[in-house]
Formats: sequence, C-alpha cells, structure tokens
Amino acid sequence: MKIAVLSGGVGGARFLRGLLHHLDQTRPAGTTEVTVIANTGDDITLFGLRVCPDVDTILYTLGAGVEERAGWGRAQESFRLQAELTEYGLQPQWFRLGDLDLATHIARSQWLGQGLTLSAVTARLAARWGLPERGVTLLPMTDVPVETHVVVDDGERRAIHFQEWWVRHHASLPAEQFVVVGLDRATAAPGVLDAIRGADVVLLPPSNPVVSIGIILGVPGVRDALRGTPARVVGVSPIIGGAPVRGYADACLAALGVPATAEAVAGLYTDFLHTWLVDPTDADAAVPGVRTVAHGEELLMRDVAASARIAGHALALAEVGG
Amino acid sequence: MKIAVLSGGVGGARFLRGLLHHLDQTRPAGTTEVTVIANTGDDITLFGLRVCPDVDTILYTLGAGVEERAGWGRAQESFRLQAELTEYGLQPQWFRLGDLDLATHIARSQWLGQGLTLSAVTARLAARWGLPERGVTLLPMTDVPVETHVVVDDGERRAIHFQEWWVRHHASLPAEQFVVVGLDRATAAPGVLDAIRGADVVLLPPSNPVVSIGIILGVPGVRDALRGTPARVVGVSPIIGGAPVRGYADACLAALGVPATAEAVAGLYTDFLHTWLVDPTDADAAVPGVRTVAHGEELLMRDVAASARIAGHALALAEVGG
Repeated sequence: MKIAVLSGGVGGARFLRGLLHHLDQTRPAGTTEVTVIANTGDDITLFGLRVCPDVDTILYTLGAGVEERAGWGRAQESFRLQAELTEYGLQPQWFRLGDLDLATHIARSQWLGQGLTLSAVTARLAARWGLPERGVTLLPMTDVPVETHVVVDDGERRAIHFQEWWVRHHASLPAEQFVVVGLDRATAAPGVLDAIRGADVVLLPPSNPVVSIGIILGVPGVRDALRGTPARVVGVSPIIGGAPVRGYADACLAALGVPATAEAVAGLYTDFLHTWLVDPTDADAAVPGVRTVAHGEELLMRDVAASARIAGHALALAEVGG
Repeated sequence: MKIAVLSGGVGGARFLRGLLHHLDQTRPAGTTEVTVIANTGDDITLFGLRVCPDVDTILYTLGAGVEERAGWGRAQESFRLQAELTEYGLQPQWFRLGDLDLATHIARSQWLGQGLTLSAVTARLAARWGLPERGVTLLPMTDVPVETHVVVDDGERRAIHFQEWWVRHHASLPAEQFVVVGLDRATAAPGVLDAIRGADVVLLPPSNPVVSIGIILGVPGVRDALRGTPARVVGVSPIIGGAPVRGYADACLAALGVPATAEAVAGLYTDFLHTWLVDPTDADAAVPGVRTVAHGEELLMRDVAASARIAGHALALAEVGG
C-alpha cells in the first residue's frame, strides 16, 4: 500500500511517528510505502546555514532523536556554539540552534553548496535517521527555496520572516497577510506529484492549515494532484473545540478571515478532502461534501500510542471508506 | 613605536603573547602599535566553512581563549557537532573542529559570503578577542584565498592539502615540493606592505621557515618591502641544536634541500635579516651578513614569562642595534 502524507513540523512528525507505529503493529514489514511531502515554506538561512525546520523535526522525530518535550530540536542538546556566535555579535539569538542540530544545517548547506538539490540532500539526511529502512521516503515539497513572510502592522507596517513572527513574537503581532516568497516560481520536487497521484491513501496530519498544509497546497500542481488522485484523502483536524491543539493556527487563520473551528479548516480543503477526522467535541461539524467522523477519544497526540490510534483511525477511514 | 611581526600559528602566537606581556611591563600603555601579518597559506575549507588555522591560533592565544597544552584550538572545548557530521558521513575526521571553534568558522564564512574581505572579517574576529584594545592589528597576509599543497610520493605521486600532510600524516610522507595554489595571483592585504615599510622594528617569531614565514615571503611585494624597510629585521630561530622547537620544520626544510640548522634557516632570510637570535647551543652559527646573537637561556617559549624574555631580547636587538 502506498500512503502519501502532507506534513508540517511537530504535529505532522508526531502523526507520522504514530502512523509508523500503527503500521509496524498491523502490517507485515515491507508492505507499505509512506511518502512524506514536507513543508519547506518556513525554511530560513541563519548564520549562512540553510535551516529546514519541518524537515528536521520529521527526521529527528522518526529517527528517535527529537527533544520530546519541545517536539522539535535534538534530545540531549547543548548550545555552546550559538553562544559563541553571540560573542561575535551575530544575530539572531531568538532562534535557538543547538550544537547537534547545527551539524544537520552544516551538512545540508555543504551539500547544497556542492550543487545537490534539496531533495537529494534530504535523502542523505534521511538515510542517517533510518527512514528508508522504515519504508519512508521524505520529500521536500519543492527544491526551489521558498520562504514565508508575514505582513504585520504594529504601528509600522512591514514584512518579517515567518520564523521571526512565530518564534520571536509567538504570533502575537497581528498577521495581515502571508507572502510566500518564491512559491509562484516553485515546482513540486521530483516524486511529489506522482506520490499523490499514485497513492492508495492520502493523509493530512493535524498540521497548521495555513502555514504548513496551506503552503504545500500552494506549490503549483499539488492541489490539482489532490483533486485528481483516485486515493481517498483523509484529514485530521488541528482544531479542537475552537482552539488549536498546539501552535498558533488561530492567529494564522485570522489573517485569512477564517474562524478557528474544525469545520472552517475543513472548508479550506473541500475541493479534495473526502473525510475529516475530528475530536468528539466537534462531532457536529458539518462541511459540505466532506464526511466528518469523530474520533473515539480526545483527538490529542499525547504519546506514541495515542498518535498511533489517531493515524490508524484516519488510515481505516481512507481504506474502508463509507 | 611601530612593530611589525610576521607570524605563523602556535610559535608565532606564543611569541606575540610574550611580546605583549613584555610591552605591558616595560612601556606606557598606548605607545606601541603591533601589526601582525599572519600566514593564511594553510587555510582550508572544511564542511563548507572557511578555516584559517594560524589566524585563529593568534586570536585565541592573544585573547586568552586557547587550549594551552595543544597551543591551538579553544580551551574547554567539546566536539559534539563534528561527531554528528561523522554520523552524516562527512569527512574529514582527521581535522578536529570543536563546537566553540566552529563558531569562528561559521562567523567567518557568513561574513565572507556577504562579500566582506578576509581582512575585514579578521578585524571583526579580532575585536571580539580584544586585540585592538591591546594595540594589536591582525592582518591576513592576503585577502586572496591561498592554499598550500604538498607533493608527496609514497608509491603514488600526488598533491595533498598541507593540512592533510601536517595534521593527518604528521608530515611523515616525504614532501617533494610545496605548491602554494593562488600565491602567484595574490596581492598583499591592505596595510601589509605599509606596516613593513613604516615599521620601527620588524620581528620574525620562531615560526616555520617554509610553510609559515616562507609563504608570507612569497606574497608579491612582501620580500621587497622587507629589503627596503628602514626598520631593523630581527628573527628568532625556530631550530635549536639541529631540531625544530616544535612542529615538523625539519621535514619542510628537507623538501627545499635545506638543513635543519639555525644557520641554514637564517640563510633563507639573508637578503633582509639584520639579526638572528639563537639558542646558546647555536652560538657559533655564522651567517654571512647577519649578526647572530645567542639568547641568555634556552630559546624555548616554555611559558609566558620565557616568551616575554625572548620577545624582549629580540626587540632590544632591533632597537639598540649594534
């Protein structure tokens, strides 16, 4: 079976870890191929090094190297190098880069500098974290550098990098608009459209609908592939009872004038979404043309087991249909 | 008083530290300007980052951040990041880059990538290590990338980077020739020739005569400036009793067919050298046109005090003349 998953960072990575756990427990090894299409819209160049936060979070989470509490970054991390960069007066300090994590960015930057595509680089990184052995192919949504900027106005109207808005300001500056620099000239990375078109199942984890899934959907061809795929597309709501499960999805949705409800988020996907898995509290969500199904427990990925049950439920809805 | 010093790595840095110590103890603050012209011939790009070993050794030594026993690298260093690079399959492992040290290379590489010259970058690095406050201007010999390669033959004749020969092979592969890639098209960095021409005193620390001092002398214009300067040029022998004080100067000299003696090394400098400070065991060294003076004790920079006495002696010879 071929499963394609569109993924942002922490939420997507935890969902994927749950999915792999579910597959390990329910399917013979080697019978399932999971292709992950990762958001690269929040990529950023810091200290001359290319950082792909969502890709890295997926690598570390699936490779058992993630800092579990934060959900991103490396476990047993130290921050000696960045403290030295600060001594040299280098900014920013608000984006924390650990000593172990920096190795990923140095490796990536060196390989990109040698002319490898981001896809090729990501494959090399994924090999170290054991993804191929687990039947997982990790693809960046595009090989073209794409960076999300946020138009904010706190007296002075200006565009700042998404990471500055998200990490430094905790999405507290009202976002007027998201401008995805480079997205108009981006093309889907090799394998991305084929993975969607050739999938048996397409899953949307509870990733941010605006700055994760929304950005992937903006890559030319992706939305058409989702509309055209014979696979069932099943999504997991990132909103429970009117509030995001984590992160600042509400602040992102506000910029689009979309309410932070499970219903409204599904409304962004109606042209390709078949089934929408929601929290029991959102069981009455009604989305035209989309089947809404309530999960049997809170829709929270509290641990790997809970994530596996959510992923397993989504997968069952996509396979069995109804 | 204006002092110009041509410097390699560990030997040069320790000499400079001794010189500053001597000046602190004997001269009113602010009355002496020391311009260091540093060898950049052993620079290397590792993991996409530009490493300038001699410049860094000078920075760390004068800035009280050096690992004292090795004489290079940072004190209280850790090596977590490079271990991660190894996990990604990145080479080389034989050149050790610590977490703190890597910050210097990341800062340098970022600034070079922004279009700054190596001189401008070096000035920024030097500011952090407090060199300007101590009256020290640190100049790379050239802003043009220059890299020393070594022609070796261990059955297969080939050229390898100087660092591979020095660090990996401990200079054990017989060197047939040193090829300084880029040196022919190099120009002295801004301030280098003026520092020599306008100096009251020019000092040569006991740096490697072939791959440190010898490379600086190969920068077009440097040797002419030394020949033409009204300043006295005083050198400190890196050879004691037929053996190098440290490093592999003997292996380097062999490639030139020059014996590893205090006398023979001075012979490389006779066109501009006025006085040659040697170890008492080499008191009978006779170099045509050069005054040879024996130091009053072993010519070893065992500690800062001993280095200060050597530097002070060299300075006195340059000032008082005779």
